[in-house]
Amino acid sequence: MKAMIVNEPGGAEQLQVSEQPTPEPKDGEIRIKVEATAVNRTDIINRRSSSGYLDHPILGVEVAGVVEKVAADVDIEVGTRVMGLVNGGAYAAYTVMPADRAMVIPENLSFEEAAAIPEVFLTAYQTLFWIGKLRVDETVLIHAGGSGVGTAAIQLAKQIGQANIITTAGSKEKLDFCRSLGADVCINYKEQDFDQEVLKATNNKGADLILDFIGASYWKKNLDSIKIDGRWVLIGLLGGAKVEKFNLMHLMAKRIQLTGTLLTPRSDQYKADLTADFASSAYDLFKNQTLKPIVDRVFPFEEMQKAHEYMENNKNTGKIVVKMDS
Amino acid sequence: MKAMIVNEPGGAEQLQVSEQPTPEPKDGEIRIKVEATAVNRTDIINRRSSSGYLDHPILGVEVAGVVEKVAADVDIEVGTRVMGLVNGGAYAAYTVMPADRAMVIPENLSFEEAAAIPEVFLTAYQTLFWIGKLRVDETVLIHAGGSGVGTAAIQLAKQIGQANIITTAGSKEKLDFCRSLGADVCINYKEQDFDQEVLKATNNKGADLILDFIGASYWKKNLDSIKIDGRWVLIGLLGGAKVEKFNLMHLMAKRIQLTGTLLTPRSDQYKADLTADFASSAYDLFKNQTLKPIVDRVFPFEEMQKAHEYMENNKNTGKIVVKMDS
Repeated sequence: MKAMIVNEPGGAEQLQVSEQPTPEPKDGEIRIKVEATAVNRTDIINRRSSSGYLDHPILGVEVAGVVEKVAADVDIEVGTRVMGLVNGGAYAAYTVMPADRAMVIPENLSFEEAAAIPEVFLTAYQTLFWIGKLRVDETVLIHAGGSGVGTAAIQLAKQIGQANIITTAGSKEKLDFCRSLGADVCINYKEQDFDQEVLKATNNKGADLILDFIGASYWKKNLDSIKIDGRWVLIGLLGGAKVEKFNLMHLMAKRIQLTGTLLTPRSDQYKADLTADFASSAYDLFKNQTLKPIVDRVFPFEEMQKAHEYMENNKNTGKIVVKMDS
Repeated sequence: MKAMIVNEPGGAEQLQVSEQPTPEPKDGEIRIKVEATAVNRTDIINRRSSSGYLDHPILGVEVAGVVEKVAADVDIEVGTRVMGLVNGGAYAAYTVMPADRAMVIPENLSFEEAAAIPEVFLTAYQTLFWIGKLRVDETVLIHAGGSGVGTAAIQLAKQIGQANIITTAGSKEKLDFCRSLGADVCINYKEQDFDQEVLKATNNKGADLILDFIGASYWKKNLDSIKIDGRWVLIGLLGGAKVEKFNLMHLMAKRIQLTGTLLTPRSDQYKADLTADFASSAYDLFKNQTLKPIVDRVFPFEEMQKAHEYMENNKNTGKIVVKMDS
C-alpha cells in the first residue's frame, strides 16, 4: 500500500511516499481504509527526531475512514465510517486500530471533518476534565486558542464545562474566531501582557486552570496568572522546555498542581477509556452541531510536506487535514 | 497571660517571653488552656521572616490542652481535653481555636503526646491521601523519614494506605526507627544514591508517589525516582528552593503531577474538613496504639529557644514538644 515515511530524521523534505506492507489487524482490531488524516505536533516531533514517542515507521496518529476488515472479537461491521486515534501509521492507505477506540462518524460530518476530531478533541477533553478537573463557573486560561487543541478546548470548556474562558492568540483574526467559538476574554499576546489581562478579568484572583502549550517562554506569566490552588496542565512546549532558576516556593505559596501530559504514548486501555468517556459526553453535540470540528485547510496526500510546513509556520487556525486520493 | 513572641525577625535568640492579652473566643470558637505545644518548620520560617505565612504576633500552630471557655454555637464542654491546629498563637498559656477543628484527645495519650499529633499527622494525611491519592499496594517515597512529618507519614502510609514504603534519612539510628514504624526500604542518603536504590526496589519503575520536604537539592534524583504517571507532593524546601535548570520535558515525558502545598495558610473550612476526615480514619488507631505520636524530646516553655535550635540542627527523630509550666 501507499504510505508516507520519514527518510531520515529532519525537515519536512524528509517525508516521502513509499510502498509499505498493508498491516493486518490482530484480535480486537479493525483495518481502516483511510479517507483522511491530520497533522499533529507529535508528527513533527517524530519526524525530526528518531527518539520521538512513536514506535512505528509510518507517521500519523489519527484517521477517518471506512472499516475494511475486522479481526476476531470485534463487533463493528465492515463498511462503517469510523474515526479515532491510532498508534502511528495513519499517513497511509490502510491502517489498523483497536476496535474499542473507534468512534462512528456522525452522519452530518465528512471524512475531512471527522479527521479533525480525535487528537485535538480527546486531548482537550482529557486535559480539561480528566487532568484539569474543570468545574462549572471556573475560569480556564487556554493558550494558543487558535490552534487545533485550542479551538477544541474552547468549545468543550464552553459547551460541556460551562466555564469562563480566557484565551490568548497572536492575531485579531484568530481571537475573533476564538470568540465565535465561545471564548469570553480574548488576549493578543503580542500586544498585551496576558498575565495582567487575566488578573483584570478575574478580580485579581487568577485562573483556576491553565492549558499550557507554550512552556518556558510563558512560565513566569503563567505563575502570575494562576489562582491559589489552581491546576496547570502542561501539554506542549512551543515556547521552549528550559526554565532557568525555577523557584519552587512559587509552587508551594500558590499550592499549584502542575501536571505534564502527552496523549500519544499512553496505553491502549487509557485511549479506549478516554474515547468512550469523550464519546458519551460529546457525540450528540457533534450531531446537533453544538460542537464543530475546525478545519483550516485540506491538503492532498502528496502535499504532506506542505502540510507540515504550514503547521511549523503556525499558519493554521484549527486543524490541518490531509485527504487520501480517492 | 504568658506568651512567646518574636522580638524582631531573626534567630532563636529573638524568641522571648512576654505578657500578652488573653484571647477571647468568638462565636464557634473555644479557648484552650495550653498544656503542650510543638515546634514546626513553619514556626522557624515565621520567626526568621516578617513575611511568613502567619498573621499573628504569637508563634505556634498546634496545641494540646483543656477547653477553658466556649463561645456561642459550640458543643464541646468546658474541661474536655483537646488537640488541634490553631491559626498561630499556640506558644502561650491560652489560645483560641474554631471548635470544629478540635479533636478530643484519646484517653491513653498524655498532653505531650497529643501535642505531637495535629500538624504532622494532618500534613501527612493530607499529602498522602488528599493530594497524593495514595492507593493500596502503591509505592511511596517518603524523604526525611525521621522528621516529624516523616514519622507520621510512614505510619499512615503503612496502617491506612497499605503501601510499600521507601524512606530516606541520614543516620542508621533514624533508619532503624523508620523501619520499626513500617518502612520497607530504608536508604541512607549520605551513603547511597537514593534514586538508584528506589529503582532497584521497584523493578526500575520508580515510586508512584513522592513526599518531598527537600526541594532543589533532590530535584534531579526525584525526577529519576518517580514512576510514569507518578504524583510528587512538594511540602518543604530543606534543600533549597531554586532549581537552576528545569527541563519541562521531564514533566511531560513522565506525565508527572507536581503539587506544591502548605497547610498553615489554608482556610478554616479546609482545616476543619481535613481534621474531620483524619479523625474518622485515624482516631481509633491512636486509641489501640496502632498509630503512635513520636515525641523526640520535651522542652519546658522557658527553653523554647533551645527547642528551635534543636530543630534547626536536625537533631530530632519525630516531634519536638514544648510543655507549659504546670
